This record gives sequence, structure tokens and C-alpha cells, in this order.
Amino acid sequence: MNNFNFYTPTEFVFGKDTEIQTGTLIKAHRGSKVLIVYGGGSVVRSGLLSRVKQSLDTANIAYVEMGGVQPNPTDPKVYEGISLGRKEKIDFLLPVGGGSVIDTAKAIALGIPYEGDFWDFYAGISIPEKALPIGVVLTIPAAGSEGSGNSVITKLDGLKKISLRTPKVLRPVFAVMNPELTFTLPSWQTACGITDMMAHIMERYFNNTPEVEVTDRLSEGLLKAIIDEAPRVLSEPENYEARANIMWAGTLAHNGICGTGCEEDWASHFMEHEISAVYDVSHGAGLAVIFPAWLTYMAEHHPEKVAQYAIRVWNVSPHADKHATALEGIARLKAFLHSIGMPLTFHELGIDEPDIELLVNKLHANKGDVVGKYLPLDRNASKQIYEIANT
Amino acid sequence: MNNFNFYTPTEFVFGKDTEIQTGTLIKAHRGSKVLIVYGGGSVVRSGLLSRVKQSLDTANIAYVEMGGVQPNPTDPKVYEGISLGRKEKIDFLLPVGGGSVIDTAKAIALGIPYEGDFWDFYAGISIPEKALPIGVVLTIPAAGSEGSGNSVITKLDGLKKISLRTPKVLRPVFAVMNPELTFTLPSWQTACGITDMMAHIMERYFNNTPEVEVTDRLSEGLLKAIIDEAPRVLSEPENYEARANIMWAGTLAHNGICGTGCEEDWASHFMEHEISAVYDVSHGAGLAVIFPAWLTYMAEHHPEKVAQYAIRVWNVSPHADKHATALEGIARLKAFLHSIGMPLTFHELGIDEPDIELLVNKLHANKGDVVGKYLPLDRNASKQIYEIANT
Repeated sequence: MNNFNFYTPTEFVFGKDTEIQTGTLIKAHRGSKVLIVYGGGSVVRSGLLSRVKQSLDTANIAYVEMGGVQPNPTDPKVYEGISLGRKEKIDFLLPVGGGSVIDTAKAIALGIPYEGDFWDFYAGISIPEKALPIGVVLTIPAAGSEGSGNSVITKLDGLKKISLRTPKVLRPVFAVMNPELTFTLPSWQTACGITDMMAHIMERYFNNTPEVEVTDRLSEGLLKAIIDEAPRVLSEPENYEARANIMWAGTLAHNGICGTGCEEDWASHFMEHEISAVYDVSHGAGLAVIFPAWLTYMAEHHPEKVAQYAIRVWNVSPHADKHATALEGIARLKAFLHSIGMPLTFHELGIDEPDIELLVNKLHANKGDVVGKYLPLDRNASKQIYEIANT
Repeated sequence: MNNFNFYTPTEFVFGKDTEIQTGTLIKAHRGSKVLIVYGGGSVVRSGLLSRVKQSLDTANIAYVEMGGVQPNPTDPKVYEGISLGRKEKIDFLLPVGGGSVIDTAKAIALGIPYEGDFWDFYAGISIPEKALPIGVVLTIPAAGSEGSGNSVITKLDGLKKISLRTPKVLRPVFAVMNPELTFTLPSWQTACGITDMMAHIMERYFNNTPEVEVTDRLSEGLLKAIIDEAPRVLSEPENYEARANIMWAGTLAHNGICGTGCEEDWASHFMEHEISAVYDVSHGAGLAVIFPAWLTYMAEHHPEKVAQYAIRVWNVSPHADKHATALEGIARLKAFLHSIGMPLTFHELGIDEPDIELLVNKLHANKGDVVGKYLPLDRNASKQIYEIANT
């Protein structure tokens, strides 16, 4: 087990009707003027935005708002928010939505008190040291951004999709999580979210760090719970219990607990970021295509942990050969992903002729000559994985 | 799943040599004058106390110290610490030790800024609202106090052993956790700690809350990891990896994550507190006697979750009858506890003629007419469980 710091100060306020606590929570964290950030019209139509504003009114908290954040969020919306927030002298960010909305709010929270261009942090030119406090009202369980210190933004110029990771600065101070708010999520978005959270666990699980039994068992348990609950949320979208389990799993998948003491991989996420940056597909759907391809490559070249995953998560009976055990686990993962409506190939993702050369070039331009840790990928390896995903 | 708040702001600094960061961590949390609290001479003899002091010196942090905290800590030491801390105008508590030392420091942290008697909080007369900040250097993985908001103190007058639970106020701001510091723990203490952490998970796991699959799977995974690692730490006390897994498991067993969304039980802990208050036995050893007795009673009267536990944690093949499945799981738990050197009866605990009447009287005087939530125990039920432990 490696040395680690584990710091998750976010207060999770979980359950029915919890959004009415939003104003009180902001007050407890000394917010006095809030920028509410949201995406499309669904939070308006559902009445959620009104309920949240009412909660702020009741707590005597002033606010301005900015809607219109898109999936795979881009930098222009961040600049708009920074400009608005400075003009209005806001001191607290309140994203109401899913990962795209939260990540945009995080970038704004960093940008407002910073004299330079907020992109400096994503480009690795500056290290984040301070940000305005962020509270979250979550509506989409997927990205785990409500409990993480991370933010993913795409710079339109060059389609650079970059993940910024901070150990502390960008952790929300609270996250309001009412599973009822997810009842109206369409099946496709629900399934993309499930795939994303499973990937967050697996990016951490596939490592070479010896003797991380506690972390392994937590990750395996969480994956098993997601696999059990996934068909239920899809067949019964208003099943509170199933929605609650999936929502809480999405947070734990990405708040860091599944990576304690491990050297995490993350190659699949980086490979997917190039796909969604170029083709603007859903991140979760892109992961459903890339992760099994990555695993198939690993089953051949470094099967150790993939075989353990097959046995413990997918109940595969061990074969004499680790490669075969691993492949059977991957087959069960693929069957599961298909069963929840996810694509498994570029073709199924709607990309008939992917420009693999471009994806490989962008991946290594952004991430260096080798990508990932479990088995670091050079250009040849990443090309092979994109090609597996194209068959 | 029930609504819940989950808030764990403690920064866990885990791994080799981490104790040299203590001074820097206190400084980051604005401590300027520290009360170091410790127990017997082992932290002195091992050189740990010197290294910690050196770290404080390097960070220019002043300190005073109080040693001599005993297992099953009592109120006189708390009063001594409050008096010393006020006189020296300390603003930060640094327990260096295990649960008894941490819990004493927590009581002192509450008592110093409070005008009345600190026992008011344990007696339920006052609600804790503020405390001095606490940082921990952990040497015994067991109580989980390094990551919890709880503190257990025994009032000598009447031998009242009371657990105070706060959602926020008593959570340490940091916990330094170096598994190497546990290499010298004797087998008995190691095994008592393992039993205590398993009990912390099980007190939460045995509940009637429907549909807590995520929490169940995390708890089962953590129990499986502990069961795998326990024989290794006992046979190879200087095995860093095994010690590290057990140490991290002890924290996660009690920081609240294993109880999210559940109505927890805690009857076994309350029943044990009466035993260790009256007979001054090790808390973990007392739990090894009580928990299987409690489970045996539940196997007969409310086997549902006990059967699930048997199947998922102890790999029992389900019998047609839940009672039989449950009993087989309990048999495996008992065999495990024996294998790590724990007692299973009052006699093996060194108490040949337990005063069960006294224990039942004290239990219900302290905790009310019914105790626990999974199947609330009246006097007749708690008496039967103490008697099962006496056979």
C-alpha cells in the first residue's frame, strides 16, 4: 500500500426533500451572494430551480443566475460566469445539475479570484490555491464531481478536453442529493451515468500496487451494488430505493475512497476524453466503448488484476489461465453494458469511421508519450486499443 | 434507505514516516499551543513522543503534555487535562495513542471552553457545540476514534461508561496514521482491536432499513478484508502491508460510511460497556463474548440479516432455513475469533461468576427500557443474551 492523504470535507445531505436545506447550508458556509449555475431547461421545468431559489430567499441570501451550460462543457461559458460573478461580487457558487454544471462552476470559482486566465490551471501553468466555496444540488449521478476536487473543461480552440485534479481546493463544501430529482432522467443518461461511475472505480482498481486489500474489497463491493441496482433504475425509473443506491454509489466511486493507497490508471478516461472532445458523444457512452477495449488489451498483456476483477466482481470461476479468466469477466461486463443500452464499438456509438490517427495524436500530445499506469500505453498500444474498439 | 448526513472532514495522512508531518499539520490548522495527551510509557520508550515533539519544535509550536491515560479511560484524567489546558492556555489537542487517549483528549477539548462540568455532555444535559481542534497520531487501530465524532468515558462514581456521539464537533481535523507504529502492539491488543473494528461494522450492518445495498456491500467488503488480513498481522507483526490494511480498515469501520442510510443497532456495544465498566476487561475482548451471543439470540428471533451476513461475509451456502444459515455464519465468526485468541464466554474472559443481574440493571438504567434497534432488547432479552455468553 502506498502512502496517501485522504481528505473529503464535503458534507453530503442525502435524501428526500433535502434541496429545501440549500439556503441554510449556504448560510452556514457564510455565502451571502450566490451565482446559481445550471444547464438546460429541465431544472426550470421540473420546478427544482424555483424550490432552490425559495430556499435562498427564506435564508435571506441574494443570488444571480447563469443557465445554458452544455454537456462536455466548454470554456466560453466559464468566461461568461467569471465575468458575471465579478460584476455581481458573488462569494459562493451553487451549481444545480450534473457534472458539466458542477465542473463549470468549479472553473468559475477558481477564475474569479485569479488575476490571469482560468485556463492556466487546466493547462498546468498555475497551481490552484484558492477558489470561492462551492455547494452543489445534484441532479445526475455520474461524474462524481459533487464529492471530488476535479473539474473537466474543454477548450474550444483545439478541442482540448482537460481534467484538472486538486486534492482540496475544489471539493464542494456541501452536496445536496435527493434521489427523487433523478426520477425523470432518461434511460440513456441514466445508463451513461452508471457506466461513468463504474469506470471511476475501475480506473482506480486496475493498479499494480501490492496489498491494497481494503481498497480492493470496497471497490468490488461498490461495483457489485451498482451491477445489482442498474437494471432496477432502468426498468423502474421512479424506484426511490434503486435511485438512491445508484446516486450514493456515484459519489463514493469518485470521492477518492476507492483509490486509497493505490497508483491509479486513468488511461481509459484520457482515451475517452479525446473521443468526446472530437465527436461530442456522451462521456459515459464513450467509456462503454473504450473500457472493454482497454481491458481486452490488458487481458492479453497484463491479465493479473483483470482476472481478480472477473472472479470477485463478475463471479467467474477461475480458469487455469488468467487470460481466459480475464476474458470471461470482460465478456460479462460487455453483456451488462449492452443490457443497459450502452454501445460497445465506435460503430454503435454512431462513429462509423473514427479518425484513429487523430485520436492517438491528440491523446499523446495532451498526455505525453505514455499514458496510464497499470500498463503504460505508448502510441502503438493506444492505437491498438482504439482499433479493438472499432471491431 | 433513510435520509442521512455524511460529513467526515478529517484529513487522513497515512503511511510510513507520516508522524514527522505533525507540526506542519497543526500549523495549518492554526494551533499555537498544544496539549499532547498520551497513555503509558510505550510512546516514550519507542521514541515516538520524541519524534512528534521534534516535529512541533521544527514548526515552532509550543506544547505541554499529560501522560498516564489508562485503558477504559475515566473522568479524573479528563478533569486533570482541562485544568492543565486552561492554566497553560492551550488551543489544540494532540492525542498520541489509541482510542482511550483520543477519547480523553476529546473530552478535554469539549471541557476547556465549557463553563459547566464536562460530564454534562456525556450525561445528556448539554449538547456539544464547540470544542478545541484535535489532531491525532494513532498507534492502535481499534476504536476508530481518529475518524469519528465519538468519545467514550467512564465516570468512576457509579462506573458509568458512556458513549458521546457528535456529528461534527469532535471529528479530529487530522489523523496521522503510520502502520509501522503498530508493529510492536502485542497479539492480544491487536486481536482486541480487530474485534472492535469488526463490531463497529456489524453494529451498523444489522439493521432493518430496506434497500441499503451500497452500504451493505461496503460493510461486507471491509469485513472480508479484515478477516483475510487478521491472521497475517498476528503471525507476522512486522508485516507492513497487513498492518496497513488493518489500520485503514479500523478507521473506515467507524467513520460512518458503513452506516449511511441505515438505522444502526449498537446493543452489543452498550451491553459490553457494562462488562468493561464493572470488570475492567478489554473492550474488544468483551465484544468477542457479547457479539456472538447477541447474534445467536437474533438467529432465533430475527434471522433475516444474520443469514445474509453468513452468506456474503462467511461464504456459507444458504440452507433452506434462515435460522440454520445464520447459525453456520455465527459458528464461523466464533471459530475466527478463537483463532485470533479472543475469548467467547465470560469464563474465557476471566469472569467466572458474572453478576448478570447487575449488568442488566446497569444496562437498562443507562440506556432505557429497550436497547438497540435491529430487535430492541427488553430486560428479559438482554438477560438471555448475557446468559448465552455465560454458557
